Amino acid sequence: MAKLTAHEITTLCLSLGVLLFAARCLGELARRFGQPAVLGEIITGILLGPTVLGHLAPELSAHLFPSTGGAALGRDAIVQVSLVLFLLVAGLEVDLSVLMKQGRAAAAISVCGMVVPFLAGFAAAWYLPRAFGAQPGADRAIFALFFATALAITALPVIAKTLMDLNLYRSDVGMIVIAAAVFDDLMGWLIFAVILGMISEPDADSFGLPATIVLTLSFAALMFTAGRWSFHRVLPWVQAHTSFPGGVLALALSAALLAASFTEWIGIHAIFGSFLVGVALGDSAHLRARTRATIEQFVSFFFAPLFFGSIGLRVDFMRSFDPLLCGLVLAIACAGKLAGCLIGARWAGMERREGWAVAFGMNARGAMEIVLGLLAFQAGLIDERMFVALVVMAVVTSMMSGPLMRRVLARKKLRQFQQYLPSKAFVARLHSRERREAIGELCLALADTGAIDARTASQAVWQRELVTPTGIGNAIAVPHARIPGLQAPLIALGLSAEGIDFDAPDGHGARIVMVILSPPEDHGAQLEILADMARLFARPEVRTRALEVRSHTEFLALVQAERSHAAH
Amino acid sequence: MAKLTAHEITTLCLSLGVLLFAARCLGELARRFGQPAVLGEIITGILLGPTVLGHLAPELSAHLFPSTGGAALGRDAIVQVSLVLFLLVAGLEVDLSVLMKQGRAAAAISVCGMVVPFLAGFAAAWYLPRAFGAQPGADRAIFALFFATALAITALPVIAKTLMDLNLYRSDVGMIVIAAAVFDDLMGWLIFAVILGMISEPDADSFGLPATIVLTLSFAALMFTAGRWSFHRVLPWVQAHTSFPGGVLALALSAALLAASFTEWIGIHAIFGSFLVGVALGDSAHLRARTRATIEQFVSFFFAPLFFGSIGLRVDFMRSFDPLLCGLVLAIACAGKLAGCLIGARWAGMERREGWAVAFGMNARGAMEIVLGLLAFQAGLIDERMFVALVVMAVVTSMMSGPLMRRVLARKKLRQFQQYLPSKAFVARLHSRERREAIGELCLALADTGAIDARTASQAVWQRELVTPTGIGNAIAVPHARIPGLQAPLIALGLSAEGIDFDAPDGHGARIVMVILSPPEDHGAQLEILADMARLFARPEVRTRALEVRSHTEFLALVQAERSHAAH
Repeated sequence: MAKLTAHEITTLCLSLGVLLFAARCLGELARRFGQPAVLGEIITGILLGPTVLGHLAPELSAHLFPSTGGAALGRDAIVQVSLVLFLLVAGLEVDLSVLMKQGRAAAAISVCGMVVPFLAGFAAAWYLPRAFGAQPGADRAIFALFFATALAITALPVIAKTLMDLNLYRSDVGMIVIAAAVFDDLMGWLIFAVILGMISEPDADSFGLPATIVLTLSFAALMFTAGRWSFHRVLPWVQAHTSFPGGVLALALSAALLAASFTEWIGIHAIFGSFLVGVALGDSAHLRARTRATIEQFVSFFFAPLFFGSIGLRVDFMRSFDPLLCGLVLAIACAGKLAGCLIGARWAGMERREGWAVAFGMNARGAMEIVLGLLAFQAGLIDERMFVALVVMAVVTSMMSGPLMRRVLARKKLRQFQQYLPSKAFVARLHSRERREAIGELCLALADTGAIDARTASQAVWQRELVTPTGIGNAIAVPHARIPGLQAPLIALGLSAEGIDFDAPDGHGARIVMVILSPPEDHGAQLEILADMARLFARPEVRTRALEVRSHTEFLALVQAERSHAAH
Repeated sequence: MAKLTAHEITTLCLSLGVLLFAARCLGELARRFGQPAVLGEIITGILLGPTVLGHLAPELSAHLFPSTGGAALGRDAIVQVSLVLFLLVAGLEVDLSVLMKQGRAAAAISVCGMVVPFLAGFAAAWYLPRAFGAQPGADRAIFALFFATALAITALPVIAKTLMDLNLYRSDVGMIVIAAAVFDDLMGWLIFAVILGMISEPDADSFGLPATIVLTLSFAALMFTAGRWSFHRVLPWVQAHTSFPGGVLALALSAALLAASFTEWIGIHAIFGSFLVGVALGDSAHLRARTRATIEQFVSFFFAPLFFGSIGLRVDFMRSFDPLLCGLVLAIACAGKLAGCLIGARWAGMERREGWAVAFGMNARGAMEIVLGLLAFQAGLIDERMFVALVVMAVVTSMMSGPLMRRVLARKKLRQFQQYLPSKAFVARLHSRERREAIGELCLALADTGAIDARTASQAVWQRELVTPTGIGNAIAVPHARIPGLQAPLIALGLSAEGIDFDAPDGHGARIVMVILSPPEDHGAQLEILADMARLFARPEVRTRALEVRSHTEFLALVQAERSHAAH
């Protein structure tokens, strides 16, 4: 029985542990700067792989991430399974019903948004294959087809995330963008699957191109019809008669693995199978949010970092970085996609500003582009330079998309109240028993941060309090005032075990007191913060838990957990 | 870069998919018969491996689960990582604080319950090493030590599950058993770690025995003190400042992998590291139930079935099954453990009946014994016969433990109302608008199952209803009656969109109407079922969701999901 030696197990666990830890740390750092986590995960691999660590400390790098032997092979097996499961989750996020509901606008945008960059990419690659990094032996037509597809795809997860950040997900524009992205995503993968079928090595096992294409398309069609229907029928039975959520979890994961094996066998890649299973399964209303969250969280925070972290281990990004090629790819990608989407949006009768927003949103290539580039690179279709250029293009288009959409629509990111709460201004135990005193105590805590003068602030808040009392019920009070000279809103939050009378309509004393100071020019701030806070504390459990909190850090942890609870 | 070929990826995904699917199916089947899921998972491997499929269809078996090449190595890598993560979860379940709280009784039981089987095992193996399946070259003392340890351990998860089933988990007896099992579990692993250190091949990398032992014990001590403390301090920070629950998830998993690598490196096995990380982490009150559940569910329903399923792939259970040895091992194991625990319990002043219950509970060896046997087998300490005997002993002791405890304490398993609800007696849309009519409609549905006469039942329920109305508020009504001649309770459940007046104290009409019929001799049935039902529908969301249900299967799915929600 082939098995790993003790030494190989040591190395394998070490590589995975280091990779996971570093990838998640840099992923969080990326998020901190408003960027997708995948950016940090890719940089992790670049730092730990041949590009940086391999140059600085080749021995350490070879020890951590050997490139031959059982540990390397074992790592590759885990990375492959990670990729398969990542695509399952990507498929789960595709909501086919959105496609049906959106009409002409989504169709126009998705078709134009694919065709234009596709044609631009095809022409460029056809006339200048070597300049665009085709491998010497690669077939010109296939290479051109691949490059065209690479430019035409769109990254659903990045767009969805951006729209949620801007509070546009459920808006008309948002739904149109999502529907167009779903369509482009699906079509892109199908075309790419066919391309992979074209280049798979003809050996004893293989089916030949026509059979592979027919099998691919029939399998996709089958999953969209019979597959969807069967999952929808079988899910309630599984949930009723097996352990919860173990039955559904195992069903989803084993179906993904089996479908992956099937699509790999017919000559395209394993990921298509699991992606299609994800699409078929994710569509069922019987899949519970809780089960979906368990799969998504484990995959996003364990398997995905391992996969994206490992990309940089394969390639020397520095040596293969070709600024000219990167610039060229990026330029064609953006020009083609933006032009296509703008044409589509105008055709559908959207106004100009919205059209630009849609175009910037659709321009994000995200993680999908990287997966596609990697597969083409591994299949020998493109060289390392082109692979690096695609990664750069994917990262840059994803980073651009949020800020540009925001600017075009003059939208702001949703403000969350805890952003404006300095650590010093969290008072776990208010000493005051009375309204005016409590306001003074909280303003004093805020003054400690050096941003305001305690007396001025507390007087302004008290004047406002005299106009109408700010107890809003549910044991919450929100005394507030506009303070000239402030640059940004500022919050202090205090907890009182006994409750302080803020003259609330329900007659209960306030146990959670939040002082909100805002700049007079920033008209929205007060209301936004107030609404955000009221939403967060809507559930009684959260209020109970908040009163048990003993530090600012614990309070932030509670807020984070509750926001994630609300999202699922 | 060592990587898997397309063919190997096909095979790997196929093996994992088949193994996961089959293991979960048989695991559910085992649960259906009141047995631990691990039993079904082990049988899966026996069926798919050399024991059965390898005999019936050797080619298919070799195709599905090749024993050499990249796919086999890749599978082993994934199985090893699965084992590491399984031990992380096992560690999470160990609650050190229970140890501190339980006094003399737990100490007496755990010490006697370890020492007596340990001595019995040591003596038997020392005098008859070959009869007990020592490998010819194995050191006699080390083998005897191993066998002694194998008999002395106790399986915490099996006991915890049994106690929960019997509603004894929070009772005095329950807490004593848990505390004693925690102690035996920890001690067993530590001794076994030292034994593994003794037999690890001395090579260039290794530290030598004394160093390994010192390192093992210091690492354990460090994790119990500084490790626990650091995790407790760092968790709120991670929850407050990173994405939720991704930060904590990645922290737990990467810490487990890194500790696994460390313990493998010092010459014991990878699993000790992740087990200790689990213990240190699981103790922190800051680890949220939700995050814990995500880790536990994914590991229990993805990684654990892969590991336990793969055991049968390694060994031909039929060829290595030695009835005499199995009987002998089982007899000594039971005799030693039962005697030890009984002595301990009497010494601690427990009464006789409780002593027997404790002894039967502690006798379960569960999954831990199997892991330990596998490691010893792989390390060349025991032969296949002895490995099979240990697996049999683990399975039999685990299967005995629940029923025997139940019988000794004259306890019944908790009854859940949905067990008594036949599919035909679930009425998604009650036609009746009025009390008497609704009772009649539900009794008619029950009569359809052939168990009762509709008229008799409906009259009995109506007579009872006239005594006191059975609307219990929250839109629930529970008309009921005792019906002579019934063998077991029988329930019909109907939903009414409009609500039916059952004269509830809160004045609301009943939208969920449950008719409970029970045998006159079974005094507890009515109340138990009523209480269970009231608990389940306590949350308003569940009542809202129940009204949307359209079939018996969907209703059972809802009940399952809610029970799992309540458990976490």
